[in-house]
Amino acid sequence: MAYDFAVGQTNPETFPVEALKAAAMRAIDREHDSFNRYPGAYGHEGLRRLMAERESDREGVSVDPDQIVLTNGSMQAVTLAGQALMEKPGDKVICEEFTYSGTISAYSGIGLDLEGIPLDEDGMRIDALRDRLARLADADELPKFIYTLTTYQNPTGTVMPEKRKRELIEVAAQYDLPVVEDNCYGDVHFEGEKVPSIYAMDESPNQIYICSLSKILGPGLRLGYLLAREPMLSHIAGQRFDAGSNTFAAAIAAEFYSGGVWDHCETANPVLRRKRDLVCGGLAAHADDLCVWSNPVGGLFVWVRLPDDVDIDRLTGIANDREVFFAPGSSFHVKRETVPYIRLAFGHVPEADIIEGIPRLAQSIREARTSNEARAFTTLFD
Amino acid sequence: MAYDFAVGQTNPETFPVEALKAAAMRAIDREHDSFNRYPGAYGHEGLRRLMAERESDREGVSVDPDQIVLTNGSMQAVTLAGQALMEKPGDKVICEEFTYSGTISAYSGIGLDLEGIPLDEDGMRIDALRDRLARLADADELPKFIYTLTTYQNPTGTVMPEKRKRELIEVAAQYDLPVVEDNCYGDVHFEGEKVPSIYAMDESPNQIYICSLSKILGPGLRLGYLLAREPMLSHIAGQRFDAGSNTFAAAIAAEFYSGGVWDHCETANPVLRRKRDLVCGGLAAHADDLCVWSNPVGGLFVWVRLPDDVDIDRLTGIANDREVFFAPGSSFHVKRETVPYIRLAFGHVPEADIIEGIPRLAQSIREARTSNEARAFTTLFD
Repeated sequence: MAYDFAVGQTNPETFPVEALKAAAMRAIDREHDSFNRYPGAYGHEGLRRLMAERESDREGVSVDPDQIVLTNGSMQAVTLAGQALMEKPGDKVICEEFTYSGTISAYSGIGLDLEGIPLDEDGMRIDALRDRLARLADADELPKFIYTLTTYQNPTGTVMPEKRKRELIEVAAQYDLPVVEDNCYGDVHFEGEKVPSIYAMDESPNQIYICSLSKILGPGLRLGYLLAREPMLSHIAGQRFDAGSNTFAAAIAAEFYSGGVWDHCETANPVLRRKRDLVCGGLAAHADDLCVWSNPVGGLFVWVRLPDDVDIDRLTGIANDREVFFAPGSSFHVKRETVPYIRLAFGHVPEADIIEGIPRLAQSIREARTSNEARAFTTLFD
Repeated sequence: MAYDFAVGQTNPETFPVEALKAAAMRAIDREHDSFNRYPGAYGHEGLRRLMAERESDREGVSVDPDQIVLTNGSMQAVTLAGQALMEKPGDKVICEEFTYSGTISAYSGIGLDLEGIPLDEDGMRIDALRDRLARLADADELPKFIYTLTTYQNPTGTVMPEKRKRELIEVAAQYDLPVVEDNCYGDVHFEGEKVPSIYAMDESPNQIYICSLSKILGPGLRLGYLLAREPMLSHIAGQRFDAGSNTFAAAIAAEFYSGGVWDHCETANPVLRRKRDLVCGGLAAHADDLCVWSNPVGGLFVWVRLPDDVDIDRLTGIANDREVFFAPGSSFHVKRETVPYIRLAFGHVPEADIIEGIPRLAQSIREARTSNEARAFTTLFD
């Protein structure tokens, strides 16, 4: 028995076993000749067409399937964009101060130096971005690009409003910086307004957009994609030497999603929303005096701010002894600094485990404190 | 209608449509939970276990599944090995003078400088390798590693005998150079003795081995792998930032191959061998006065030496007008030099098209000549 809030995955309960089997039958029958061919750098045309429709429907802009490169999960897209935009090791990239741990590993791994910009409830703070860029420009150390998770940000759950996206576009244009917008949680939507993507708001070839099927279907299929306009698209696609992405999984996924992605999302998202409510409700019932946390309107994570007097290593030990697992905030800090936050992933956790696990976590936090003082903060960011 | 000898793929006629559908049913039923998880850097355990058995069976050595990393086709393995072994742009890598075009693109693309060693009927010439390494050592420009296609070499079809492999191991050890042996055609075997791999002959962690399912099942599944011992294995796996290879395709392939890979090879290889015979027989009947060519004992290619007075661009134009396509030798030359060779891929070509296409090719070669002189060469290499 484990209460595993560590890894970001969607519901196993809503995985479409029978529909995927039926899709596999049809796709293997019809497309097996293509499984004996190399995919090419851009990948399965049918899935690209469907993903173009997915983006068009969500964003209300026309998207050309020829602007899409299928990748081995969105992580290959993230990596290829970094490799294309970096000129030499030590080049800088701007991202949120807290961002996806896989991106931190990839960008550090290829030699980029990550500059983290503080967030508030609306995502990356543009005032802080302006200051940082001015400072970097003075030092002749301008970054090569900006990487941003604007929607249901991992780990904080924030959504950047349209007005702030407009400001981000302006600041980036001022320094001629490409913007990589990672929207891999875009369709894990619970409530509230959908904000258009930066890619949809600005036609510059400097806008690069990344999305995925990992968060709505499953990461084991490794189906992500990158959207960009020429000449950026060819430049990024030219960084890949793996002969292209899996036609087999793409053909079967395209068959499964032949009516669009939204039908299956409408099955999965209410279950995810209920799990989010169980996490947030559990924290309210058991940790209201200790912590504050996000109440995300989409995505797979709740971001929890801990009392300053909690030793995270101690908390991890106590919680693990109770079979409770989570991701420490340091995993998402661009410089891997120890910070008083943890991330709770709820997508793959059965509801009963959330109901039992959150009180165990709250009790663990309580025991990991070194004082009895009331918490000094009232918001997630300050 | 086209006579397409350009791209290296196996028979579409023997693609196991029904067996793969049945395997997909079973694998999706049993393993769908894993499709909702991240694969991890090493990938699907069942397929790694089967590939370890495949290597053990062929090579007669014990192979541990934990020495295997699944990759997005063998090309990702080739690329990751290069990225791991390269220290800085401009570093050198040794390979055969003629080698796989995808490897040339990948290694050039990541910034390696390829040093091509001449081949003879037994593959890379060790005398030439010794000379080159001595020269490079004198210039303090030793390569970072050796990349070699030892078995059914692409494009030349040569097989390196065990004795020469032993010499290669010794020379590499003398300079402490890792050896990347790409054996992706290893099970596309028609006749003759099977030579053990370098990896099986030497236990040094400097030996790196690459194989694939692309040539025996299909490249659209993107299932390749890399075999190495620690610490080399972790070093290479640490270069990947794509969150791992496709569990979905791996699970279905593992189910399809649950009895081992050889059953299906025994279906596919006789068809491929017959196609090779049709290519070589057609050349003997129609181009014996013009060309010499390989008669490969495995693999998917016949390598053809053209009369020196053939202008390749002219030949390409004439042949394409007759709907005959092939890959020019320059695609496989490490420095992309124009050379009097072409490569004929026969795996995916229907037998009837080979029978009609080879005379058309021979006639095209004849018309692309600028003299009537008898050819001055009698062997493929000199």
